[in-house]
Amino acid sequence: MTGKIESRLPTVDARIYPRGGLDVLSRTEVARLRDASVGGMHELLRRCALAVLTSGSASDDPRAARELYPDFDIQVLQHDRGLLIDLCNAPAMAFVDGEIIRGVAELLFAVVRDLAYTAIETDENCTTDLEPSEAITDAVFGLLRNARILQPNEPNLVVCWGGHSINRDEYMYTKQVGYELGLRGLDICTGCGPGAMKGPMKGATIAHAKQRKRSMRYIGITEPGIIAAESPNPIVNHLVIMPDIEKRLEAFVRVSHGIIVFPGGVGTAEEILYLLGLLLQEENRDLPFPLILTGPTASAPYFEQIDRFLRLTLGEAATSRYEIIVGDPAAVAKRMAAGIRKVREHRIVQKDSFFFNWSIRIPLEFQQPFVPTHEAMASLDLHHGRQPHELAADLRRAFSGIVAGNVKEDGIRRIEAHGPFLIHGDTDMMEALDALLRSFVEQRRMKIAGDYRPCYQVVTDRALDAAATVS
Amino acid sequence: MTGKIESRLPTVDARIYPRGGLDVLSRTEVARLRDASVGGMHELLRRCALAVLTSGSASDDPRAARELYPDFDIQVLQHDRGLLIDLCNAPAMAFVDGEIIRGVAELLFAVVRDLAYTAIETDENCTTDLEPSEAITDAVFGLLRNARILQPNEPNLVVCWGGHSINRDEYMYTKQVGYELGLRGLDICTGCGPGAMKGPMKGATIAHAKQRKRSMRYIGITEPGIIAAESPNPIVNHLVIMPDIEKRLEAFVRVSHGIIVFPGGVGTAEEILYLLGLLLQEENRDLPFPLILTGPTASAPYFEQIDRFLRLTLGEAATSRYEIIVGDPAAVAKRMAAGIRKVREHRIVQKDSFFFNWSIRIPLEFQQPFVPTHEAMASLDLHHGRQPHELAADLRRAFSGIVAGNVKEDGIRRIEAHGPFLIHGDTDMMEALDALLRSFVEQRRMKIAGDYRPCYQVVTDRALDAAATVS
Amino acid sequence: MTGKIESRLPTVDARIYPRGGLDVLSRTEVARLRDASVGGMHELLRRCALAVLTSGSASDDPRAARELYPDFDIQVLQHDRGLLIDLCNAPAMAFVDGEIIRGVAELLFAVVRDLAYTAIETDENCTTDLEPSEAITDAVFGLLRNARILQPNEPNLVVCWGGHSINRDEYMYTKQVGYELGLRGLDICTGCGPGAMKGPMKGATIAHAKQRKRSMRYIGITEPGIIAAESPNPIVNHLVIMPDIEKRLEAFVRVSHGIIVFPGGVGTAEEILYLLGLLLQEENRDLPFPLILTGPTASAPYFEQIDRFLRLTLGEAATSRYEIIVGDPAAVAKRMAAGIRKVREHRIVQKDSFFFNWSIRIPLEFQQPFVPTHEAMASLDLHHGRQPHELAADLRRAFSGIVAGNVKEDGIRRIEAHGPFLIHGDTDMMEALDALLRSFVEQRRMKIAGDYRPCYQVVTDRALDAAATVS
Amino acid sequence: MTGKIESRLPTVDARIYPRGGLDVLSRTEVARLRDASVGGMHELLRRCALAVLTSGSASDDPRAARELYPDFDIQVLQHDRGLLIDLCNAPAMAFVDGEIIRGVAELLFAVVRDLAYTAIETDENCTTDLEPSEAITDAVFGLLRNARILQPNEPNLVVCWGGHSINRDEYMYTKQVGYELGLRGLDICTGCGPGAMKGPMKGATIAHAKQRKRSMRYIGITEPGIIAAESPNPIVNHLVIMPDIEKRLEAFVRVSHGIIVFPGGVGTAEEILYLLGLLLQEENRDLPFPLILTGPTASAPYFEQIDRFLRLTLGEAATSRYEIIVGDPAAVAKRMAAGIRKVREHRIVQKDSFFFNWSIRIPLEFQQPFVPTHEAMASLDLHHGRQPHELAADLRRAFSGIVAGNVKEDGIRRIEAHGPFLIHGDTDMMEALDALLRSFVEQRRMKIAGDYRPCYQVVTDRALDAAATVS
Repeated sequence: MTGKIESRLPTVDARIYPRGGLDVLSRTEVARLRDASVGGMHELLRRCALAVLTSGSASDDPRAARELYPDFDIQVLQHDRGLLIDLCNAPAMAFVDGEIIRGVAELLFAVVRDLAYTAIETDENCTTDLEPSEAITDAVFGLLRNARILQPNEPNLVVCWGGHSINRDEYMYTKQVGYELGLRGLDICTGCGPGAMKGPMKGATIAHAKQRKRSMRYIGITEPGIIAAESPNPIVNHLVIMPDIEKRLEAFVRVSHGIIVFPGGVGTAEEILYLLGLLLQEENRDLPFPLILTGPTASAPYFEQIDRFLRLTLGEAATSRYEIIVGDPAAVAKRMAAGIRKVREHRIVQKDSFFFNWSIRIPLEFQQPFVPTHEAMASLDLHHGRQPHELAADLRRAFSGIVAGNVKEDGIRRIEAHGPFLIHGDTDMMEALDALLRSFVEQRRMKIAGDYRPCYQVVTDRALDAAATVS
Repeated sequence: MTGKIESRLPTVDARIYPRGGLDVLSRTEVARLRDASVGGMHELLRRCALAVLTSGSASDDPRAARELYPDFDIQVLQHDRGLLIDLCNAPAMAFVDGEIIRGVAELLFAVVRDLAYTAIETDENCTTDLEPSEAITDAVFGLLRNARILQPNEPNLVVCWGGHSINRDEYMYTKQVGYELGLRGLDICTGCGPGAMKGPMKGATIAHAKQRKRSMRYIGITEPGIIAAESPNPIVNHLVIMPDIEKRLEAFVRVSHGIIVFPGGVGTAEEILYLLGLLLQEENRDLPFPLILTGPTASAPYFEQIDRFLRLTLGEAATSRYEIIVGDPAAVAKRMAAGIRKVREHRIVQKDSFFFNWSIRIPLEFQQPFVPTHEAMASLDLHHGRQPHELAADLRRAFSGIVAGNVKEDGIRRIEAHGPFLIHGDTDMMEALDALLRSFVEQRRMKIAGDYRPCYQVVTDRALDAAATVS
Repeated sequence: MTGKIESRLPTVDARIYPRGGLDVLSRTEVARLRDASVGGMHELLRRCALAVLTSGSASDDPRAARELYPDFDIQVLQHDRGLLIDLCNAPAMAFVDGEIIRGVAELLFAVVRDLAYTAIETDENCTTDLEPSEAITDAVFGLLRNARILQPNEPNLVVCWGGHSINRDEYMYTKQVGYELGLRGLDICTGCGPGAMKGPMKGATIAHAKQRKRSMRYIGITEPGIIAAESPNPIVNHLVIMPDIEKRLEAFVRVSHGIIVFPGGVGTAEEILYLLGLLLQEENRDLPFPLILTGPTASAPYFEQIDRFLRLTLGEAATSRYEIIVGDPAAVAKRMAAGIRKVREHRIVQKDSFFFNWSIRIPLEFQQPFVPTHEAMASLDLHHGRQPHELAADLRRAFSGIVAGNVKEDGIRRIEAHGPFLIHGDTDMMEALDALLRSFVEQRRMKIAGDYRPCYQVVTDRALDAAATVS
Repeated sequence: MTGKIESRLPTVDARIYPRGGLDVLSRTEVARLRDASVGGMHELLRRCALAVLTSGSASDDPRAARELYPDFDIQVLQHDRGLLIDLCNAPAMAFVDGEIIRGVAELLFAVVRDLAYTAIETDENCTTDLEPSEAITDAVFGLLRNARILQPNEPNLVVCWGGHSINRDEYMYTKQVGYELGLRGLDICTGCGPGAMKGPMKGATIAHAKQRKRSMRYIGITEPGIIAAESPNPIVNHLVIMPDIEKRLEAFVRVSHGIIVFPGGVGTAEEILYLLGLLLQEENRDLPFPLILTGPTASAPYFEQIDRFLRLTLGEAATSRYEIIVGDPAAVAKRMAAGIRKVREHRIVQKDSFFFNWSIRIPLEFQQPFVPTHEAMASLDLHHGRQPHELAADLRRAFSGIVAGNVKEDGIRRIEAHGPFLIHGDTDMMEALDALLRSFVEQRRMKIAGDYRPCYQVVTDRALDAAATVS
C-alpha cells in the first residue's frame, strides 16, 4: 500500500472468457496469440485494451488513461479449450457489481481479435503473387471480414467524418443528422471517438429505437495510434482496429455507401483530400459516391473556405464530386438516401458486392504509409499543373504530417528536434493553405487545450527563392 | 385557403393498417370498434391519437397540440379483413418521407386497442358474480393482458414516479438512476410523460445498449385525462391507457416489482400516499415491496420535508416501508435489485405470479374514483387517531383534488365557480400540509408556466371553530 | 395390488406447469377452469388428455386407451401464480426419462385450453345481439383465435380430408402429395388422426426440412367425440378441439385456402357433401375455392363412383366446383398452389382476411348439430327437384347418421334398440346411394376390424309405397 | 439430338447465387476458386455436385448418376460481387417448379466451399512450423471450422457408424435408436449416405420435432471417393467433404462426444479398429469416450463374432473400451447420454473445448493415407506380441484395403491386374479374420448387388511357409 493509493481510481481484477469469433480457435492460433500478446504486441494490446475499458470517458488525452491506471495489465492465457483474458487493475467503470459490461467486453474481444489477426496473418510464412496494391486491399478485406463487418445486406452504411473537438452547436447538429439518417434506416460508421464521431451514432440510436430497427450497426474504425486519444464511445457495437491510418482510410472508403463530412480540423481536411484524390481519377469518374459536407448554419463560412481551397488546388471539376448543405439535417439524410439508391443500382449493374467497394481504384500512393519527416514534408510537390489526384495525394500528406506534428508522439519529437515542418509551393496555393490553417487555429480545431503553437511553416516558392538568393 | 394557413404546422394524410393484436379481430369486434370510434369515444380517440402523434414534443399544455393541429381527425374504418385507420391533417413530425414512424404507429395502435378494449368489454351485455373490488382488479388485469404487458418473465420491472416539471439537476439524476438500473438488467415503467417519467427510460436505453440487452421494456401507463398534457416520450415501447387515475395507480402497483420516487409535486405526493396507504394495511404487512425515495444531493431538503410529513401524519411505523437515498444512483440501483430478489423469493413461496401482484390487498376505497367537489374535499377526515391507511386514503384524496384544481378541466371550472377548496383537520397536520404545499409552490413544482394561484385553502380545526363562533 | 397388475402398461405420475397462453390467466379464470375440470367437464378432459398422451399409438379403438390405462386421472389445480396439471398413472410412452415430451405437453395444454375456453365462454352470464348463424361463426372464430390458429400470414393452408382407415398404397400416396405440397411451402391442416390425416403431414415434414422452412404448421382440428378414436399423430404442432362436428367442419372451411380429398368412407362423403352444399349456394357462386379429389391410380374407380353419385344427386353443375386428379402428386400440388394464388387475389379485392374466410356463406342448416334419431333419418328429404344445396344438406345428414351408427356410442345404442336406420328417397338416388355404401363396405372403408354389419337400410320410394300398400 | 434422348431423365439449367459463407469472398479467393473449378478440380466438383443434386436417390452405384445425367456440368463463375454457379442439364429432381430446393442448394454450396477451401488453402505459398501430425490435425480443424461445424454448444453430438447396405430389420432399429437419441436432445453425425447413415437421422428428426427442438444438426462427413456411391440423404443439414478417408475418420473422432456402431461390413470393421487403435494407446487411457455397439436382437451373433475377433487380436483389455447392447434402443440412448455427461465433465476439468476433442492423441500412423498396393497389403504385420494399438493400425489397413478392392476404382483395377491381395499373419488371427470376412460375404454386407468375388486371400504364416518351402 503506497501513499498514493488514495489518488487512484477504483480498479477491478477479472478473468474473461471471449466469445464471438475468439471462441473457436485452433491450438496453434491460441499459442500464436498468446506469444504475440506477451511479445512485441503486449504494450499495444495494453494500450488499446485500456482505451476500450475507459470507453465513454470524457478525456481525449492519449496519456491520461495510462496515468490514471498505471498498474493496469492484460494477459492472454491459453488452455486447450481456447483462450481467456486476465485483467489486472482494470478501470472499475467498465464493471457493474463485479461483472464486466457486455458491450465493453465485446469491444475488448474486438481489440484482441484484430491485433491477433494482424499478428498471426503477418506472422505466417507465406508469400503472395498479388501486386502490392492488390495485396494491401486484400489485407484490408481480410481484416474487415474477420471482424464480421462485411455482411451481405442492403447498402445502408453512411460514414461520418469530422472533428473530435467541435463546439456544442456543431455537436448537436451531428446528432440531428444522425437522427434523420436513422429514421431512414441507415447505419453509421465513424472513427469511433467523441465529437462528430459520436453525435451521429447517438442520434441514430434514438431514431432506430423509434423505427423499431432490430439489427443496427454502429461501426467504429480506428487504428492503434488513434484509439488511445479517441476512446470508443459507448454506442459502438462493432469495433475494428486497422494497422495504420492509410488502411483505416481505405476501410472507410470500401465499406461505405456514402460519406458525410462535418466540420473538423486538419484530420478532416486530410480525409477530404484523400477521398477527392480518389474520386478525381479517371478510372473512378463514373463511380457514384455520395459525398456531403454539412454543418449548422453558423458553420457556413467554414465550408465556404474549404470549398475555395478545393477549387483553387484541385480545380472546378472537383466540386462536382461533393455537395455542401448547411443547416438542414433532413435534407442531408434525403440526399444521402437518394445517393445510396444510385450506388445500389450501380453495384448491381457492375456486379460489385454491396459490402465492399471493389470497383473504386485506390492507387498505391494512397495506400502506402506516409512517414512525415522534415525531408518528406519539404519535398511535397505542391504546384499547379499536376494531375488533380496527384496534387491531392501530396496535399493529403501535408495535412497528415501536420496531424502527426500536433498530436502523435514521434511527430512531436521531430518538431522539437528540428523546428517546424517547411511546406512550400506555388504562391496562391500556399497563401490559401496558410489562411486555412490559420482559421483552424482561430476556431480552436487544432487542439483542445492550451494555446496552439504551429508545427509547420508555409512558404511560397517566391519567398523560398528569395531566401535561397540571400543565403 | 384561409389567411391563417401559413401559421399552421405541416400535416400529412395517411392510411394505416394496424398490427400487433389489432390484426386478428372478428367482424363483430371491428364493427363495435368502428361504432365506438364514431360515437362517444371519438373525441377521446382524437385527443389521445394526437398526443402520440406529437410524441416527444416539448410542450406540456394539454390544449397546445389541439390548437396547433385544429383540423386533425382520425377515423377507424371497417372492412372484412379487419380495420384500418385514416388520419387527416396529422402532424408531419410523426412521418418520415411520407411514411409514419413505426414506433409512433405502434403507440397509435395501442391507443385504439385500449380504448376499444374498454369500450367493447364495457359494452358487453354481461353480468358478473365478482365482488366490486375483485371486479375492478379483474378489469385492470384484463386491460393489461390485452395490452401484452403481462409476460411470464423474471421479475425486473421498476416503476419510477416523480414530477414532469423538474429542474435540470433533478432530470440528469433520473437519467443516472435509469442508467444504473439498466446496467443491472432492470426494465422501466413510468407515467410515460416528460421529466422524471422520461429520464429513467433514457438512461436505461444507453445502459441496455451497453449490456446488449435485446428485449427491453419501456412501459408507459397513462390515462385519458393525463395523456394530452404528458405526451408519451419517444422511448416508450409499450403504452397502455387505463380508464381512470385509480386504475392507473393499481396497474403501477400490480405490475411493478419495486418503485422509485423522484422529486415531484402534488401528483407525486398523491402517489406516495396511495402506496403507503396500501402497505400500512395489516394484510400487506409482510409483503416485500421495495420503495425508494431518491434525488440529487440538492434535493435532500425536499425529501426531509416529505419524510417529516409522513411521520407526523402516518406515524413512525410508516418509515419502515420506504428508504431515502440521496445523491447515489448506483446505491439506489443496488438496493432495488436486492429488493426485487426478495420479491422474487416471496412470489415463489406464495405461488404468486411474477407478472401480476395478486397478493397485495387494495381495498375498494383506493379503487373507487374520487370526484373532488368542494363538499367532498371539505368532508375529508384529516385527524389523528384514525387507522394510518384510512388517513392515508383521505390525504391521497386531498392531493388528488389539488391536482384536479390545478390542471384538470372540470377541477379548474369548480374553483372558478366556488373559490378554493377548503381543507381542514387537526392543527399540526394542517400546518404541516400547508408548509408542504407552500414549498411545492416555491420550488415551482405546481405548474410550469406563470405564477401559481392556490386552488385550496388549508384551515386548522381551531381556526374553523373560531370562524364558526364568530359568524 | 390386484392380480391384473402385470398386464398393465407402465405409467408415470407428473406435475406440469402450462405455458403458451395458459400461463397468463386471471385468478377468476383459473378458478373457473378448476371448477369446470372437477365438475361436468372432468370425464371429457380425462378422455381427451389420455388421447394426446397416447399420441402416435397405432390403435383406433376409442375405448382401447381407457382400458389400457384404467387408473389414469388428471387434475387441474389452482394457485395464485396460475395453474398446474397433475397427472396420475399417465402413459409412460409420453415421457422420456421421467420428463414429459414437450410436444405432448403442448397438445395437453391445447386440450385444457380449448375445453376451458368452451366452458368459460359458455359459462359467462352474457347475452348477445347476434343472429344465431353469426353467433356460431363468432364462436368458431373465438375458439380458433384463442388457440392461436389465426395468424396474419400469407395464404398457404391446405386442408386434407380422407379416411383414417386406408390401404398402404393410398397412405403412401397421401405422403407423396404432402411432400409435393411441402416443397411448395404449403402448410397442412387435417382431422389430426391416422391414415389420410397423418400421411400429408409426414410428407410435408420431410419437404419442409429440405426447403429449410422454419415456421411450419401442422394443424389438427378435432372434436371430443372423435379424438379418442383418432388420437393426434405426433406431427401435429397445433391442436384445436371444437365443441361439435358441425363447428369442426366450419373451422376447416373458414381457415383453409383449399381442400384436398383423399379416399375415405362415409365420413369423407359427409365432408364432400358439406362443402359442395356450401359452394353450390348462389351467394358463394363466385368464391374461388380450390377443391381437388385425388388418390393413387388404383383409386380411380373410387373417384369415378363418387363423381357419378354427385352428378346424379347434385347435378352436372356441381362438377364445376371440384377437380379429380389421379396418380399425380406433383400435379395436385401445382393445381392447389395456383388455386391458392387466386384465393389470395380474391381476398385482397374483397378485403377479406387471409386467416379466416368471412366471405363464404354458411347457412344455419349447416351449422346446427344434427342428432341422428330414427325419425330424423327417416324424414330426410332425398328427392330430385330440390335446390342442390338443400339436397346436399340432407345427404350430408344421411352420411353423418351412418357414421354415428357405425362408431359413436349413442348411435350404436340406437341401432341396437331400434334396428337399422331407414333411409328412403327417389329410386335412382337410393340405388346410387346403396351402391356407394356397398362399395365402401367391400373396400373395408366402414370399419377397420371385423365384418361390417350395416346400420342402415336404403329403400326406394317405390318399394316403400309397395310395402305400404301391402301392410 | 441423339436417338437416346428419350431414355434420359428430365434435366434443368439453372444459375444459383451462393450464400452461407460463400457470399463474402475476396476477389482473389473468387479467382482462385474459379481457376480451381475449371482446372484439376473440375471433374471432382462435377462428381460431388451431381451426388448432392441426386440426394435421396435410392441407387448406390457410384457410376449410376453419371450415366443417368451424362451431360451434367457445373461452372463456377466470377464477378466482382462474388461468385455464381451455373448448372447445365442438372437432375430435375433437385428442383421444384424450376427453383432449386433450398436444402439441396445448401449441400451444393457446401461442396463448392469445401473443395474450394482445400484447393485454396493447399495452394497457398505457405510453410508451416508444425509437426506433421499437428499440421494434419490443424488442417482437419480448419476445414471443419470453415464448414461451421465447430460451434461452442453443449456436448450432444453422437456419431453413428454402420453399413450402408443393411437389412430392413437393422434399418428400422437404427431409426429407433435415432429416435431415442433425439428424444434426449442429442444431435446426429454420420457418413451421410443411406442405411445406417440415414436411419438415425430420420428417427432423430421425428423425435426432435416432438421435443420442439429448434436448432438440430444432422451432420454428414464424407470424402470425394465415397460421396458418389453414398449420396447425402435428404435429412443432412450440414455437409462437409474431407480430403481423404483418414481425415474423415479423424473428423468423426474429434467432433463426436460418443460413437454408436451399427452392423456393417468391412468399412465398419475398419472404423472400429481405427477407434480402438486410438483408445488403446497409453496417452488416451483415461479419456472418457462412450462407444456402443448395437443392433436388433437378430444381430446378436454378428456382434458376438466381432467381439471374439477383437478379444483375440487386441486382447481382453480392448473390451473395456466398448459396450455391446442388443435390441434395446432406449438403453443405448440412456447409456450414451450418461457417457456424454462424463465427457462434458472431463472436458471442463481438462479445459478442453466442447466442440473439438484436442485431448485425444492420434499418432501419425493413423493419419497418413494408406495406399493399398499388393506390396503394402502383403507387408502388414499381423502377429501377436505387438502393441495392441500398432496391431490395430495394421488391421485397420487390412480392412481399408479390402474396401478399396471391393468398391474403389483404383483398388478394383489393381485386383484385376494382380489378383487378390495376400494377407498373412499368425494362424489363429488369420483364421478368425477369414471367418469374419466369410460371414460378411454370407450376410451380403460386402456389396449390394450380384455375387461377391473376394478381392483378398487370407493366408496363415504356416501355410505361407509351406508354400515357400514348396516353391
